[in-house]
Amino acid sequence: MRTHTDYISITTAERCEIRDITAEVDRIVAVAKVDDGLALVSAMHITASIFINDHESGLWSDIMTWLEELAPAKADYHHHRTGEDNADAHLKRMLLGHQVTLPITKGKLDLGPWERVHYGEFDGQRPKRVIVKVFGGP
Amino acid sequence: MRTHTDYISITTAERCEIRDITAEVDRIVAVAKVDDGLALVSAMHITASIFINDHESGLWSDIMTWLEELAPAKADYHHHRTGEDNADAHLKRMLLGHQVTLPITKGKLDLGPWERVHYGEFDGQRPKRVIVKVFGGP
Amino acid sequence: MRTHTDYISITTAERCEIRDITAEVDRIVAVAKVDDGLALVSAMHITASIFINDHESGLWSDIMTWLEELAPAKADYHHHRTGEDNADAHLKRMLLGHQVTLPITKGKLDLGPWERVHYGEFDGQRPKRVIVKVFGGP
Repeated sequence: MRTHTDYISITTAERCEIRDITAEVDRIVAVAKVDDGLALVSAMHITASIFINDHESGLWSDIMTWLEELAPAKADYHHHRTGEDNADAHLKRMLLGHQVTLPITKGKLDLGPWERVHYGEFDGQRPKRVIVKVFGGP
Repeated sequence: MRTHTDYISITTAERCEIRDITAEVDRIVAVAKVDDGLALVSAMHITASIFINDHESGLWSDIMTWLEELAPAKADYHHHRTGEDNADAHLKRMLLGHQVTLPITKGKLDLGPWERVHYGEFDGQRPKRVIVKVFGGP
Repeated sequence: MRTHTDYISITTAERCEIRDITAEVDRIVAVAKVDDGLALVSAMHITASIFINDHESGLWSDIMTWLEELAPAKADYHHHRTGEDNADAHLKRMLLGHQVTLPITKGKLDLGPWERVHYGEFDGQRPKRVIVKVFGGP
């Protein structure tokens, strides 16, 4: 059994942003030299998401509008009594999820035709980390 | 360490449908001959879900009504500028999640008394695939 | 490859409650003596969640208020025709998710600075189980 761990560092230009990170994950899986296994991709910060969906900018815009409707930025969250202003980011990240486990078959990510791995940022403009842990048989 | 990979193909009769796939996953786990490990069950299409909940048709109906309230089908999604009409399906699938990782203990799925694995389809009536990757010690 | 499985039993004082279970998971990981691997933490009951977020009581209160808005307790769910009264709990648990997979590096949970593992109960006051399955190389 082989394991390989790496970290992706992301600093977004905007406070809220969606980014396709499939190519970065592919590169880490290639280095791992695992023929059959799994790759865990997990946001290490609690205001960011990892999710799988379509790489289509219209859909990304729809996702952001929809998250704002379901988990709006507003002043009166209890969390803000601590001095924070990002309670909505904590909620938005949970709607999309914070991690995915990707199957690896014959040395490559075994994804469906439109599956792409995305990073969703809801309180960005500062460095955040994503862990990628690859696990399997050589 | 042993791995075993199989794919379940599903074509639903309805555009939106919930189906219990626990028996199919059980069969794949039996073939894998893994005594202690994990089974990843993951939808390979971006308008379908895999989730664990109760096998109860009233609840399935409640889930569908609820998803329609939180992520309604409507014309004015940006995603529809590409010619698609299924942006709501992309959103609904994220509310339920697209994958589960099931523990295997003593050769069998180690689930609670009412835990059943479900496939949720939100843009069906065409073949979709679910990957099942089993992983563990013999 | 090494595996180790344990179960956490939780009986909450309130019907709905959030509890930080990171210390319990840490103890199980320490017993597993896995240097590099994964820990699956999964609720075995279908009205409870496992999720990662901030250990901050104001945020916990915000999460409960928000879940009540998105998946309200009410009488007219179809699920209640079976004699149950907890359809909202089945829905709430899906918004937060029911499991997480935690990376283990150098024998310890490899979490970001504010990541804490939480149990979310939505129909409690009776014993519920959480499985923790640790998996990896010694």
